[in-house]
Order: sequence, then structure tokens, then C-alpha cells
Amino acid sequence: MKITNEFVSHGGVQMVVNHFSKSTNCDMNFAIFLPSVAKIKPVPVVWYLSGLTCTHSNVMEKGEYRSTAEELGLAIICPDTSPRGENVPDEADNWQFGSGAGFYLDAKISPYDKNYNMYSYVVKELPEFVQENFNVNIKSQGIMGHSMGGHGAITIALKNNKIYSSCSAFAPISQPSTASWTKVAFEKYLGMNKKTWREYDSTCLIEDGYHFSEILIDQGKEDEFLDTGLRPHLLEKVCAQTKIKLSLNIREGYDHSYYFVSSFMRSHLQYHHSKLSLNSPSVIL
Amino acid sequence: MKITNEFVSHGGVQMVVNHFSKSTNCDMNFAIFLPSVAKIKPVPVVWYLSGLTCTHSNVMEKGEYRSTAEELGLAIICPDTSPRGENVPDEADNWQFGSGAGFYLDAKISPYDKNYNMYSYVVKELPEFVQENFNVNIKSQGIMGHSMGGHGAITIALKNNKIYSSCSAFAPISQPSTASWTKVAFEKYLGMNKKTWREYDSTCLIEDGYHFSEILIDQGKEDEFLDTGLRPHLLEKVCAQTKIKLSLNIREGYDHSYYFVSSFMRSHLQYHHSKLSLNSPSVIL
Repeated sequence: MKITNEFVSHGGVQMVVNHFSKSTNCDMNFAIFLPSVAKIKPVPVVWYLSGLTCTHSNVMEKGEYRSTAEELGLAIICPDTSPRGENVPDEADNWQFGSGAGFYLDAKISPYDKNYNMYSYVVKELPEFVQENFNVNIKSQGIMGHSMGGHGAITIALKNNKIYSSCSAFAPISQPSTASWTKVAFEKYLGMNKKTWREYDSTCLIEDGYHFSEILIDQGKEDEFLDTGLRPHLLEKVCAQTKIKLSLNIREGYDHSYYFVSSFMRSHLQYHHSKLSLNSPSVIL
Repeated sequence: MKITNEFVSHGGVQMVVNHFSKSTNCDMNFAIFLPSVAKIKPVPVVWYLSGLTCTHSNVMEKGEYRSTAEELGLAIICPDTSPRGENVPDEADNWQFGSGAGFYLDAKISPYDKNYNMYSYVVKELPEFVQENFNVNIKSQGIMGHSMGGHGAITIALKNNKIYSSCSAFAPISQPSTASWTKVAFEKYLGMNKKTWREYDSTCLIEDGYHFSEILIDQGKEDEFLDTGLRPHLLEKVCAQTKIKLSLNIREGYDHSYYFVSSFMRSHLQYHHSKLSLNSPSVIL
């Protein structure tokens, strides 16, 4: 493990960490913010999964999460969006597949299955890694994300509702298996059998009985991807058939950028904090 | 005038504007954030002057000013740091001179005097321009900046204490006329006669009797430029001989980056707001 960047900020510490991942068979970077209270006790973790083309650094620079995370005593961890490196197969001119477009799934098709295992990395390997190396309480986890990362956060929460106490998303891709801009990636990572796609699609997972008590979503009304790629009404429709409480806020005037994400970051972190406080284990590890 | 970017953010609107400047003889970009209350009344302006190598966009992306500016009803305007373009003389490999290093002065030496007139641009031309085009109350202005922009904010406030009601800086270059990294630029812009440098040096201006009632400074203790380029103790020393009230906060652990600036942005904007409220004209224009 190597801490490649470290900044005191808003009273806490913002770090960038580089480490080798067994899941993705390459070196990975992630950003971790530790609030000052982590010096004296393990803190709950909120995961932030980023969107297409991003790395760990976009939200670290533009997400405006540190003041609220310091105030509420939350660690914020922002993984990269895909494996990267010379030995990782990629399509350099395709922003919807390969580098920057890991879709938080475990690939089934060669040669991608050797590296593109972001699901296992985010759900299993990285939590264990941060628990070993930082003063976090990994029994208290929330998960959020933006766009492709919103898809990641919701699918991961649905499949692991004992692990995560809270889930929220900014402008998530609601039904990647049918969205024009994501279908190609699903074909390459998962193969042509669409049945296997269902485990990485929020709406399909919910149809198949996966449950999460509450999901918070903020969505910009002027988002250029709203009607073609994101389509939160599809999520609304399937949730209405279940006991999942979906809070979908359509925000007038807002687009898909970090000017939107940062505007609602505080309210999302307050939401996670309220859930994590309710569900914190009685014994601090 | 062309609005090249426009984002709803934190309830207000973040814009990037391109226009031709007579002062700098070239097209200039600036960022302007208008809080939502500007829809119904003219709002006070806080100018943010950026540091070496920056454009208008660094603080716009990383400065975390919008939530507080919206809350307090302040317009935040962030000019570029120099003239730019094919017809503007520059030294492409020198980050301390030319593009990104205008030092908020009016150059006296050819060929730089045709374009490098950031002082006139920031103090005279741009305020008139924004008053004509946006719902701002230009009788209520505060000024702040970072590093080279901190030097700009303090020198501009000292020379125009009837125009600006408040002045603050993050890690300002306190005595550019003797700092190793700025001397070369002063020689090229202003010539070898060091007497002419005094009007663009905070400590010299104060020695020469220029006055501003109060100046707020935050400075990271781990700032790599602290002892060689910034040297706020020189400002402290000259202020101690005058009635200028300097509040200099040395911040343990913080460096020179926007992770530092964003950490204290809220307290600086609250400071400006308190001064601007005291000094707002009784008749709103």
C-alpha cells in the first residue's frame, strides 16, 4: 500500500491510496477521506461510486463532500471506475467500455474476466483492505454513486442489504441492460445471454425479488441523459410493485455534472448518516 | 458577450462568460456565480483572484464557494489570471510570467504593456461590465484571492479602500518585489526601476501610507511556499506599525492547494458578508 497523496482538508485528511488488487489483477487507486474523529474512534464508511469516464479524483476534487463528512464523522471512500494499466484489455476510443467504464460488475467473458471484476473489488476486497489499514467501522456502511456509479450503488445495495445500511444515487442508470449507451458494455463483459445481465440491472433485480428498504435518488431535470440512458421512472415503476421506498427528487434546472452532484451532496450524506446512526452496531470494533 | 457555460448549482447559477476587454486587448473569460436572490434584487459582489498557473476555472471547480454564496446572497466573480491568446506575448515554459501570471498589475514595459493590464481590468473594466450585464450591486464589493491572487486582492484593496468594503486572502504573496519567484515577472512587466514596483507590493504600499481597515488572512503551516514566496510575517510586521487590523490565522497541517482554500472558503465569505452588510448603501440601485 502506498499513500500517493495526502491533504489536510476541512479538519480531516483526504488521501489517495494505491494498492494491488487481487480482484482486478492490477494496481488500483482510491480516494479516502477520514474525518478528524477517526483519530479517536472507528468511523462509519460511505462509498461513493463514480460515473463513466471518471477516476477516483473527479468527486474528490469537485464533489464537495468533506465539510459535511467532517461534521458528521463519516469516512468517504471513492474507488476508481475500472481496472487500468498496460496489461488490462481496453478500447481506448470507447468511453462506454473498458477504462473508466467497469460498471461495477464481474466480467464473465475472456479476456475481460481477468481484470474487470469491480463488483468483487468494491463489495469484498476493498472493504477488507480499508478495515485493515484505516480506522473505519466496516460494520457500518452506506453506498452512493453518480450515473454508472448510481447503478453500481443500487445494484450492490440490493444484493447485499445486510452489509449496507443506506443507499442513494445521483442520476443513476436505472436499467442498463436496455439503455443504448450501456448495452454494448454488457455484451462484452457478460456475453450475449441476457439472463446473466439481470444481476447487474436494478430494475431486473427488484423484479427478481431483491430488496432494500429505502433508496434516495436525486435527478436533474435538464440532464441530457435523462430520457435515453438514466430513465428513473423505470425504477419508480418496479419499486411501486414492492415494499422498497423510493424517494425520487426531480431537480428543476440541474444537469448531469458535478455542479449538480455537489449541490445535493450534503443532503445525501445527512441521509446516510441518519441511517448509519440507527443501524450502528452496539459494540464498536 | 457570450455565456459559454451555465450550470444551475446550489440553487444559484454558475456561468462562464467570454468578452472582449479593452484593458487587455484580447478576449477574456471569467466565472460568475449568481445566487437565486439575484433574480429579485441586485446582490453584493465578492471578487476572487486566483493564483499562478490558474484560470477562472480552478476555483469554480474546487473552491466550494457556492453553498455559502447562495446562503448569504453573494455574487462570486472569478477573473482569469492574465490575458491569453495568439497575439499576447508569452513565455510558454515559464509558469511565473506571462499566461497564468498577470500579477494583477498594469505593465509598463513593451511589448507587455499592450495586454498585461490586469489591474485596470479587474478594478475598472470588469466591474462596469458586470454591472451592465448582471443583477449585481457594484456599490457593495469585497475582494479576496489565493497566493498571487491574495497579493492582488490586498494591493487592490489598499489602493481602492473606498471601493471595497472587505478584503481577505488565502496564502498571499506578501512581498512580491523581493520574493524569488516573482521578481523576474516584476522586472519584465515593470522594468528595472524598483521604485515603480512599490505600487504592486502590499508591504511597500502599507509603508507608503496606504490603508485598509481590516485584512483577514488564512495561511497553511505546511505550505511549501510559506518561507520563500509567501512570508506573511512581513505583512504582519508592517501592519503592526499602522492602524490596519490584520487577522493572520496560521493553519496547522494545511498546504497551498484548493484542499486548503476550500476548507476556509465559508469563513471568508461569512467575513465578507458581515462587512458588506455593514457598508451596504441605503438605496439599492
